[in-house]
Amino acid sequence: MTSVPPSVTVLGTGAMGTALAGALLDRGHRTTVWNRTAAKAQPLVERGALLAPTPGAAIAASPLVIACVLDYDALYSALDGSTDLLAGRAFVNLTSGSAEQARAARDRFDGHGADYLDGAIMTTPPGVGSREVMVLYSGPRTAFDAHHAALEALGDPVHLGEDPGLAALYDSALLGLMWSTMTGWLHGTALVGAEGTPATAFTPVAIRWLATVNSFLTRYASQVDAGRYPGDDATIDVQIAAIGHLLHAAAERGLDNALPELLKSTMERARAAGHGSSSFAGVIEVLRAEVAA
Amino acid sequence: MTSVPPSVTVLGTGAMGTALAGALLDRGHRTTVWNRTAAKAQPLVERGALLAPTPGAAIAASPLVIACVLDYDALYSALDGSTDLLAGRAFVNLTSGSAEQARAARDRFDGHGADYLDGAIMTTPPGVGSREVMVLYSGPRTAFDAHHAALEALGDPVHLGEDPGLAALYDSALLGLMWSTMTGWLHGTALVGAEGTPATAFTPVAIRWLATVNSFLTRYASQVDAGRYPGDDATIDVQIAAIGHLLHAAAERGLDNALPELLKSTMERARAAGHGSSSFAGVIEVLRAEVAA
Ligand SMILES: NC(=O)c1ccc[n+]([C@@H]2O[C@H](COP(=O)([O-])OP(=O)(O)OC[C@H]3O[C@@H](n4cnc5c(N)ncnc54)[C@H](OP(=O)(O)O)[C@@H]3O)[C@@H](O)[C@H]2O)c1
Ligand SMILES: NC(=O)c1ccc[n+]([C@@H]2O[C@H](COP(=O)([O-])OP(=O)(O)OC[C@H]3O[C@@H](n4cnc5c(N)ncnc54)[C@H](OP(=O)(O)O)[C@@H]3O)[C@@H](O)[C@H]2O)c1
Repeated sequence: MTSVPPSVTVLGTGAMGTALAGALLDRGHRTTVWNRTAAKAQPLVERGALLAPTPGAAIAASPLVIACVLDYDALYSALDGSTDLLAGRAFVNLTSGSAEQARAARDRFDGHGADYLDGAIMTTPPGVGSREVMVLYSGPRTAFDAHHAALEALGDPVHLGEDPGLAALYDSALLGLMWSTMTGWLHGTALVGAEGTPATAFTPVAIRWLATVNSFLTRYASQVDAGRYPGDDATIDVQIAAIGHLLHAAAERGLDNALPELLKSTMERARAAGHGSSSFAGVIEVLRAEVAA
Repeated sequence: MTSVPPSVTVLGTGAMGTALAGALLDRGHRTTVWNRTAAKAQPLVERGALLAPTPGAAIAASPLVIACVLDYDALYSALDGSTDLLAGRAFVNLTSGSAEQARAARDRFDGHGADYLDGAIMTTPPGVGSREVMVLYSGPRTAFDAHHAALEALGDPVHLGEDPGLAALYDSALLGLMWSTMTGWLHGTALVGAEGTPATAFTPVAIRWLATVNSFLTRYASQVDAGRYPGDDATIDVQIAAIGHLLHAAAERGLDNALPELLKSTMERARAAGHGSSSFAGVIEVLRAEVAA
């Protein structure tokens, strides 16, 4: 016996809202959509979505309401006048913003009797719906559990905690990691590329290497929590010597070295702070330095 | 019928040479070692290694000679006077250095009749011997194939090409990726840590996220090789807007923002170069800018 997938509403059918509603339709959910510019929702209607004429009508259609618009200003302007209708429903906000904005939204929507969950979609629209992709949520665990089946249509739902600001905070932290990793990868790609290695040859090796790097992250995470960074695998002193080779090799090949120069000076600041014989995890002390100072 | 594992010599038993010789002993290879300071090789002798009194005696003991000393100066000083003995043997140099140093070493050792392979060990000593870990090699494929079984004892052997400089070049490129990734991870860890999330809670999420990032790298690698960066998943303009959230969130929590500031300015340079609506892969154009200028 299979149960009927519950009704879901999606407010905002830009690139991401369209992907979210499409994933829900693919899983058989009765999906109601609303978009400021109704024409943009037409492709979803052709796939079986119900088009609501107003945000209020869209909200009234489902016990679970998902919003994904440009930013918080767009969110409040879209909901203006229909907030009361959220009473007794779960309201899942996948619009990007800050932890502070998420907490303010919780205060506002909880005041109207909604269960507010904030979320962050950790992929681009083509990745939505994949089991490999994480969608991060923060807010009441009860609401998360109650709607788990529908949330699963969007990607693997990960609940971070009750504080609604957590998803936005993780989102920023993870995007920062992404930009660091992608820029470091492009620098390495440019380095080997200067001698004729294609990016498509280097990248599978880089990806295998990142699996080894992951094992370092796991080891160093415990060190960060303990506040002690034993350098028994590789010390910051040794890394400073090794980054000299990279700077030299890249400079010889005409590359922009701003990133490795910054990484080196960051390690040197860690050494100056007494962490020369610590593991790389000791670098966190200088990233937090302004707090300590 | 099992064949007897071939004899192998390891020159240099510092932290890494000890791990290499230990991995060979674990796999049943008759292992001869030499170290400038003989006493440091004693633990290996207790595990069954044969201690050679001179580099020459060590070389004479095996058809495959692996060197792992501090640097090229140490290598040449250790081999001074015994280079002729390498004739007819495979000489695998796992000492870190530059592509140029590797090519000069090939010229020198080939002149003495050795088959010279250069290599880079993509782990720290505790990782040596794991099938998950890559050891990169460059130089004659025939020598790599002939000694594949012994090289497998050290980690998964990956042959990059005939040019002996490739392993060192990849090594620098991959270490640069590691420092970028680890620093980005520490910044993210400090950000969520400022609100009480332990590193050991954030890191498994970060590692899952890196799997998604890997899928971006794979997509972007083809774009780099094609020299065209369609921004149909996410544009540099959008990333510049999003990094503003990170900078704000991190500054509010007192973090050092030198890394995300640099990542942002790098993206802004890509935008100024006409890549605002390109994918992130377009950033490679500014990393190579000094060549183009
Ligand atoms: N795209 C991604 O890769 C990605 C990844 C993760 C998170 N996100 C987040 O998802 C959210 C949506 O992004 P997107 O890629 O879907 O952007 P998009 O394609 O530009 O769509 C923007 C959406 O916001 C609506 N909107 C803008 N201003 C509005 C207003 N004042 N009132 C009502 N609706 C308004 C638009 O309606 P109209 O059609 O009427 O303009 C449209 O539905 C953003 O917060 C973004 O950061 C996106
Ligand atoms: N440790 C790692 O995580 C790691 C990872 C990848 C690659 N590597 C590379 O592996 C190589 C060795 O590193 P390690 O960690 O084993 O360093 P280490 O523990 O400091 O050992 C250095 C080795 O070099 C020898 N040596 C130094 N100067 C010498 C000289 N003038 N003549 C002869 N021998 C000399 C030392 O002999 P004594 O014992 O007599 O001093 C010792 O065997 C380096 O190139 C390093 O970059 C290391």
